[in-house]
Parts: sequence; C-alpha cells; structure tokens
Amino acid sequence: MTMEYKAILLKKRPTGDFTPDCFETTTLTTPQLSDGQFLVKQTHMSLDPAMRTWVQDNPDSYLPPVGIGEVMRAFGVGVVVESKNADFPVGSQVYGMTGWTEYCLGGEDMQLVPEGVSVEALMCCFNVPGLTAYAALKKTKPKAGETLVVTGASGSVGSIVGQIAKYQGLRVIGIGGPQEEKIKWMEEELGFDKAINYTSPTLKEEIDAALPDGANIFVELTGGPAQHYVFEKMARYGRIEVIGVMADYNKEVPALGPSWVQVNLKVLNIDGFIITDHYDEMQECFDYLAEMIKNGKLHYQSHYIEGLDSAFKGVHMLFTGQNLGKLIVKL
Amino acid sequence: MTMEYKAILLKKRPTGDFTPDCFETTTLTTPQLSDGQFLVKQTHMSLDPAMRTWVQDNPDSYLPPVGIGEVMRAFGVGVVVESKNADFPVGSQVYGMTGWTEYCLGGEDMQLVPEGVSVEALMCCFNVPGLTAYAALKKTKPKAGETLVVTGASGSVGSIVGQIAKYQGLRVIGIGGPQEEKIKWMEEELGFDKAINYTSPTLKEEIDAALPDGANIFVELTGGPAQHYVFEKMARYGRIEVIGVMADYNKEVPALGPSWVQVNLKVLNIDGFIITDHYDEMQECFDYLAEMIKNGKLHYQSHYIEGLDSAFKGVHMLFTGQNLGKLIVKL
Repeated sequence: MTMEYKAILLKKRPTGDFTPDCFETTTLTTPQLSDGQFLVKQTHMSLDPAMRTWVQDNPDSYLPPVGIGEVMRAFGVGVVVESKNADFPVGSQVYGMTGWTEYCLGGEDMQLVPEGVSVEALMCCFNVPGLTAYAALKKTKPKAGETLVVTGASGSVGSIVGQIAKYQGLRVIGIGGPQEEKIKWMEEELGFDKAINYTSPTLKEEIDAALPDGANIFVELTGGPAQHYVFEKMARYGRIEVIGVMADYNKEVPALGPSWVQVNLKVLNIDGFIITDHYDEMQECFDYLAEMIKNGKLHYQSHYIEGLDSAFKGVHMLFTGQNLGKLIVKL
Repeated sequence: MTMEYKAILLKKRPTGDFTPDCFETTTLTTPQLSDGQFLVKQTHMSLDPAMRTWVQDNPDSYLPPVGIGEVMRAFGVGVVVESKNADFPVGSQVYGMTGWTEYCLGGEDMQLVPEGVSVEALMCCFNVPGLTAYAALKKTKPKAGETLVVTGASGSVGSIVGQIAKYQGLRVIGIGGPQEEKIKWMEEELGFDKAINYTSPTLKEEIDAALPDGANIFVELTGGPAQHYVFEKMARYGRIEVIGVMADYNKEVPALGPSWVQVNLKVLNIDGFIITDHYDEMQECFDYLAEMIKNGKLHYQSHYIEGLDSAFKGVHMLFTGQNLGKLIVKL
C-alpha cells in the first residue's frame, strides 16, 4: 500500500536568517517496503538551533550538510504504521532522525521509545537536549560549591544544564529570557541562584554583580554580548564548554570571540562540544535524569506548534527566543 | 662587608609599550647576611615577553604583579659571592628569580646550575623556555604524523616547541621572523617543514598553502593576524595551546580572538598554559632535552646585550622581533 504525504525540502542555503524561500513543500509517495524496513508516521518533530548549522556548506562540521533538494533534517517521534521488521512492529512508538516530513522510513538510528517515558519527557529531557546538557556539563568536571554560568538558560538545553548543576551543588547563574515569565521560571521553579535577562540594558552590570568571585564554569549556548561579559569574569582555571553560538549561526560573518590574553593568564580552557561524540553516554544520562525527575528536581516546558508547515515560522522563533520551552511541531 | 650596586625599579605601570620612564635606576647596598642567606652576583639576566604581563595590575594573573618601587622581576644566572648557607657555597653558580639588578639575595626558588650544563644551554633550553615548550606541547597530546603550527617559531620557546614536535614525528609549520636569516634558520637548521614570515603581505595565502589538510595542533605565542589565519585552518578535534599573546601585551585593549562557532562545530580545544603549573616536570623535561642535544636534534641561538641598562632597549627588541635568539643581558 502506498500513499501520498507532505515533506519539506531544502531548496537553497540561507546566507543569513532562514527565510521561507530556503524551503519547498513537496508531495511524495510512500515506498513499497523491503524486508527489514518499516514506515513511520511522524507525530512530534523537534525544532533545534543546530538546524542552522546543518544547512551550512561546511565540510568540517560534525554532520554532513543537508543536500539541496533533500528533506530537511530533524529529530522526531512517530508511530510505526507498516513494518517488515519484527523489532519494530506496527503500532510501536519510535524516535530518531525523521526529517521535516509526515512519513519516513525507519533508519538505523531509530529506537523504540522506552516504556514509562512520555513523548514530552523524551523530547524535552531525555534525548538530544538531555544528553547534550548532561555530557557537556560532565566535560567541565563540575565540583560542588563552584559557580556556573549558562547562557540560553531558559532554553531546552540550558535549563537542564542549570538544573543538573544545582543538583550537584553548584551555584548557578542563568542568562536567558527575554520574557519575564522565563526569568521567573528559572529563579522560582528551576531554583537558579540568579536569572538574568539577556536583553537587559544593564546586562554587563548584572553579570558582574552576580559573579563577585568570578565564574568557574561557563556553558555557552548563545554567543552575543553575554559571551564577552561572562568571559571577563572567568576565575582562574575556569572551564568553558561551547555547545553552540546561536546568535552567530545566522550571520554571514560571525562575531569575534574574546581575546586569548586571558586564556593564557588565567589558564582557561575553551572546549567544543558536539553530541555525536557522546551517544555512548546515553544510558548513563537516561538513568541520571530519570532519578532527577523522580526526585522532582528536573522541570521542563514544551511549546507546541501545529502542522508541518508551522516549522517555517518555528525556526525563526528559536532565534528570537519567542518559544516558551522546547519547541515541538505536532503532526 | 656591604657594597653598593645598581638595580632597576618599576616606577609606573605602562599603559601601552614599555617606555623608559616606567623604570628607574637606583643604587642599593648589599645587606648583612643572616644565617641561611647567600648573596648572588648576577652574570646573565633573561629578558622575556612575559615581563609585560608581570607589570600589569591584574589580580587574576599567575604571578602577583611587580609592585611599584620594587626591583623589576627577571630570571637569571649568577655566582654566589658571600654565603651563610652551606648548600650554596661561595663560587657556586646558581639560577632562579634574580630581578633587574647586579646583586640579589638567593631566594627559595634558586638552584645550583647542574654540572655539565653551560649557562647558554641553561638559559636557551633548559629552564624557562625549555620547560615551557616541553610541557605546553605535552598538554596537546601530539601524535606522530599530525601537523603542528607554532607562532613565534624563531623565538626561544617556539623554536624548541617546533624541534620537539619534529623529534616526535610531526609535520611542523613555523611562523616567525621577520629577518630572512631566521626563516632560513628554521628551515635549514631546525628542520621545520615550512617556515613562514609573519610580516609577509601574503601571510594568509602562505598559511593556507602550508596546511592543505589543516592543523591538528596550534601552539600560540604571538597573537596578531596569524592567530586568525591558523585558527581558520584548524582540523576537527584540533588542540590549541595558548602560551602567550605577545602582540597584545602592549595594547590597552587586546585584539579580539576568533569566533567560537568553529570551536563548537570542529570540536576544538583552546587551552591556557602557564609555566608555574609545571615545575614538577622539570627533571623529565631536562632529561628529554639533554637527550635531544646529545643526538644533535636541539639547536638554539642566544643574543647577548651588555650591561644592566641595556634591558631598557632589550624589552623593546622582544616585541619587535629584533633579537636573533634568546635575549640575554650580560652583566
């Protein structure tokens, strides 16, 4: 049985912002399955800042760029609707790389959604955002009593970084927003010691005031002016984990980084993080976060938008901080 | 017995370049020795780019700043001329922190010059430059077959970094100069695979051409445009060791560094190095370099200037690349 479905292709590479003309909606036909294959109807599609790097023609990046005319890459959750693979029977819920599409063939990276885990928890905590936060923080060797600053702190990854750090006894300063409700959420629900709005006109002064003894760890997700202000306040032997530089992904020429003079004098370490190096920590991360949830120490928020085409405006929301929680397209 | 001697004090902190009015020559009197003390007549005083950082009022730096009115800090070699310490009898040759002075009291950090080591080899290779080069390179975990770029490559530290890397089977690109004889020296005597003049108008093109597969390791000593050009050519999982940013020490506002976008996408690591963290590797380093010298694999050059006052012009030579080899003031 074949049927028609909607998918969105990458039509051209953006030079700055994602614009709708970078994409093209098309109608495709589901294939006849061969042995071992299974067909997935996507139900939840994740929108992530990393998408901007996936469409960049950068041969050195950690994933090959999405090809022109190919279905745009995404992580998602779906249901198996047809199967010639006994491990993935019809009706089972799976997650993995799906793409901007209503249907897709189950790929090698697809896995069954573990029992007892809700789709929302899976998308908000366990998979990409959770493993990113968990493994990146672990690389910085955090110690109880240290002070950590995280940017993008009200976002899906940053909010988990901060909560794990609090759980491990660190002092946590979150820079996020811009909505006042996100600032409140960080201080009142997530328990951060201080939440700072990244759009504040007194951003530098607030960062300085929050770091009387400097920052031991800086988990960077956004770039922008906060990068320089936090960098200036790094304590000796400070560790910086660069998970992303969201403010710069849309720029043709990214903003320069801080001078290396202090890297030398303060013996700092600036380290790059990509999730693909850390898939072997998935189980350990899963166990850790599940325990935090059980103890009521891991909070998350999702922000749903509806229908495949909503992805066009969704990718913009990410870069302007409009989403209130993990951005998920419901299909 | 006391006598008068000349010393140079730090009079004020420079804002940009070291200028002669930052210093003041004074006449002091040698003290009466207490038990355990010894008096050193300095014979060789080292001039190092790090001096610019030692006079900066930066409470976070790895050494406390030299105080206003204090003798300017320096590393040197001297002879014990009076002693109430049996471990350092009159006539023994010692090295350690001496200062810009003709005489000084032997401090805790002073050691006897090991037998069989010439003062020139000690100052050029074994002590500060050698340990810096050895320990910094070791931090980058070099592997035979990898490509290493070093800036300040014709200087005292950079030339040793490059030679150790060659000795360990790496491909070495040295960026140094500006004199043509330094370029020749790097390629013909030190055996670097390519030497590039940092003042070349085609610096970027030459760096690009020398790195068809990118750089795995970048040992940074100078800053300046080369920093950005080499950074752009870093290979995935590249390691950068920041020993110094000499071009920026004299600037009130140091030049910005490269964007962190590639730190993330190429999984780079930028690490700060200070020698004070590595004194425990001194013996291991000494043995390693001694073996290289025995095998004819470690070459060095010294550049002597005469008399304590020559330090005024000497510190300038360092920042303009005028010295041909390790700069030493003979007293």
